Amino acid sequence: MTERCDLLLTNLHAATMDPSIPGGYGAVEDAAVAVTGGRIVWIGPRRELPECTADRVIDGEGQWLTPGLVDCHTHLVYGGHRASEFARRLGGESYEEVARSGGGILSTVRATRAASAEQLYHAAEPRLRALLAEGVTTLEVKSGYGLELDTELKQLRTARRLAQHYPVDIVTTCLAAHALPPEYDGRADEYIDLVCEEILPAVAREQLADAVDMFCESIAFSVEQCQRVIDCARELDLPVKAHAEQLSSSGATSMAAQAGALSVDHIEYITDMDVAAMAENGTVAVLLPGAFYTLRETRVPPVDKLRASGVSIALSTDLNPGSCPIASLRLMMNMGCNLFGLTPAEALAGVTRSAARALGLCCSRGVLRAGLRADMVLWPMETPDQLAYEYGALKPAAIFFGGQNVTAG
Amino acid sequence: MTERCDLLLTNLHAATMDPSIPGGYGAVEDAAVAVTGGRIVWIGPRRELPECTADRVIDGEGQWLTPGLVDCHTHLVYGGHRASEFARRLGGESYEEVARSGGGILSTVRATRAASAEQLYHAAEPRLRALLAEGVTTLEVKSGYGLELDTELKQLRTARRLAQHYPVDIVTTCLAAHALPPEYDGRADEYIDLVCEEILPAVAREQLADAVDMFCESIAFSVEQCQRVIDCARELDLPVKAHAEQLSSSGATSMAAQAGALSVDHIEYITDMDVAAMAENGTVAVLLPGAFYTLRETRVPPVDKLRASGVSIALSTDLNPGSCPIASLRLMMNMGCNLFGLTPAEALAGVTRSAARALGLCCSRGVLRAGLRADMVLWPMETPDQLAYEYGALKPAAIFFGGQNVTAG
Ligand SMILES: [Zn+2]
Ligand SMILES: [Zn+2]
Repeated sequence: MTERCDLLLTNLHAATMDPSIPGGYGAVEDAAVAVTGGRIVWIGPRRELPECTADRVIDGEGQWLTPGLVDCHTHLVYGGHRASEFARRLGGESYEEVARSGGGILSTVRATRAASAEQLYHAAEPRLRALLAEGVTTLEVKSGYGLELDTELKQLRTARRLAQHYPVDIVTTCLAAHALPPEYDGRADEYIDLVCEEILPAVAREQLADAVDMFCESIAFSVEQCQRVIDCARELDLPVKAHAEQLSSSGATSMAAQAGALSVDHIEYITDMDVAAMAENGTVAVLLPGAFYTLRETRVPPVDKLRASGVSIALSTDLNPGSCPIASLRLMMNMGCNLFGLTPAEALAGVTRSAARALGLCCSRGVLRAGLRADMVLWPMETPDQLAYEYGALKPAAIFFGGQNVTAG
Repeated sequence: MTERCDLLLTNLHAATMDPSIPGGYGAVEDAAVAVTGGRIVWIGPRRELPECTADRVIDGEGQWLTPGLVDCHTHLVYGGHRASEFARRLGGESYEEVARSGGGILSTVRATRAASAEQLYHAAEPRLRALLAEGVTTLEVKSGYGLELDTELKQLRTARRLAQHYPVDIVTTCLAAHALPPEYDGRADEYIDLVCEEILPAVAREQLADAVDMFCESIAFSVEQCQRVIDCARELDLPVKAHAEQLSSSGATSMAAQAGALSVDHIEYITDMDVAAMAENGTVAVLLPGAFYTLRETRVPPVDKLRASGVSIALSTDLNPGSCPIASLRLMMNMGCNLFGLTPAEALAGVTRSAARALGLCCSRGVLRAGLRADMVLWPMETPDQLAYEYGALKPAAIFFGGQNVTAG
């Protein structure tokens, strides 16, 4: 490191999440961290810190520092809400009755198409602020409630605009292949033509998406249709990911992994072959326990097999108005342990190192290590196990985004 | 109403939770609320508001007003934490192994005995602040981690002291009959002697408890032992409540209801006879979905039968270090719907009207009605269904405690 640095944090413990440091947290007790130019330039045991002068010194007071949290799968930008459908279902109406009378995902599509860019922006703000207050410093946002060119662009531009005004990096994903829009009823292949010939090329031209996603399920698109979307994305030089195997087994996960997908998400119903394909191709498993919980699912993803095969496991909110109206990544850590059996250390890896990898960003963040971004959160806790176990009262003492203290409130 | 009032809120909708107003929320659309001396003096449709002058007028901007939330069952004041036990269990150790090596409730008893009053106070503060930020204006706090006179008193005094420094009413409950302290191993009847002859009389003398609670379960105390605690409480003129039928059916619920208990709490395993006894005696059913969730229970309380018998259903956090380390009453509303099948309106009644009733406070709060306390929360939502459905992003726009705006920064 250089002899001077912008910021020096001392008297803290670091859960670096660096896999080269033994123990699930890559813990360095009594550590120091030096930051310059928005990056970590030195991290290690305080007694080994080279002599240096810092523009600013922060006493960590024995608290724990973690990487900034990464929420790698959200549908943060949408219009309307679906609370009244929830009330109707709990009042005894079936999901089908609600859907027949205009509920379900298409009600969100209508509301998102009808909303102005300004309205979408303001509707997204409280959700974004809730995530940032928890220590999220990188966030993925998908389109997919437009299902037509203009509205998909409007969603993606809104996501880009949020990143200009809040201390967060937002990675955008075009999910035009989310559901069949009503005007294409019975003509799914023609809608996929629209996605591949019009929507994705336009999105790529405007550089509005960092990746392409699709929903591969009997109620959405077939494996063959998703293969077409993947082929199109590769031509446009965009990485892919997929919502797959949430409700049934289809082979979509193996197909996506073999195509080099960054991640496959949900995956309650994957097979051993799918796990092998993910391991072979370095595809991340993104688990979404909030959707599992909200939909009252019973089939859990095969965590033991993913672990045994060395597949990276990420955790995310899937924040969306229908199956996970929960803007809390910290709650997903708790649910990942309670509902899916992850350990607290795996849960933290799931919202840092592995989530960064699911976004193709593992070279820049998700771990506290010299050379990587100084996105960091200081937590008033005695052990990092508290992060997944305790919920509600444990809040960040300080949040650093690119080395800047951006602590809310 | 008088011609002048301290505070007038207009241009809002009120979910009064008043059962005399039709609809689950007792909704008054386009309402006005007048407050004087900390109490509601008028509430109704704005067009019917009598002419009046107000010292302060607040424009509700079309948002929804609800009663202040009431968390009627918490173990908020304790020492230590149990996150590492959680990590050990998820790492593969059995509950028994963890308990044998000093884990479980007795580890919290040790930490609470060892903590100074000052330490207990500061440990409780972040938990309290998390609840207050959600709109909680009345809270119950139990002792029960002392299991000896001095520490029980220390817990209850800490609860009283918190109420002096935060904008919240705290109702205290002595739960000395929570678990058998290690020094009484094999001598449960003798410990109940201590509770009845020493602890409860001392607590009553110092007016440190507003009620008496007990844990009636094979792993805690028998129905006969709990009957003795109830008899003692009645002699001391203190109302009773019970943790009952959480893990098995014992008859404790019927016994407590027949003794006039304010509430029985947990009650996953109650029988039809228990439900009838609760209905007959006006005993409130306090459901604790966070403990159900954290302990991965599968047996849900019989909500349909409670509903059919007209038993009031409250929802609470059960906030405690072992079975529900979750400081969020709003999340309990969501879990009450998702896990127990309550409707969103029942969930809101469960944390307002029925929770007040579970504390014996139904004549003063839990409903927006002239004459009752002006504990109120204004929410930026389009329908009160959002309160149970959406989580994380929806936060109070304003909180009023006894008519004072105490909205957190
Ligand atoms: Zn999704
Ligand atoms: Zn309890």
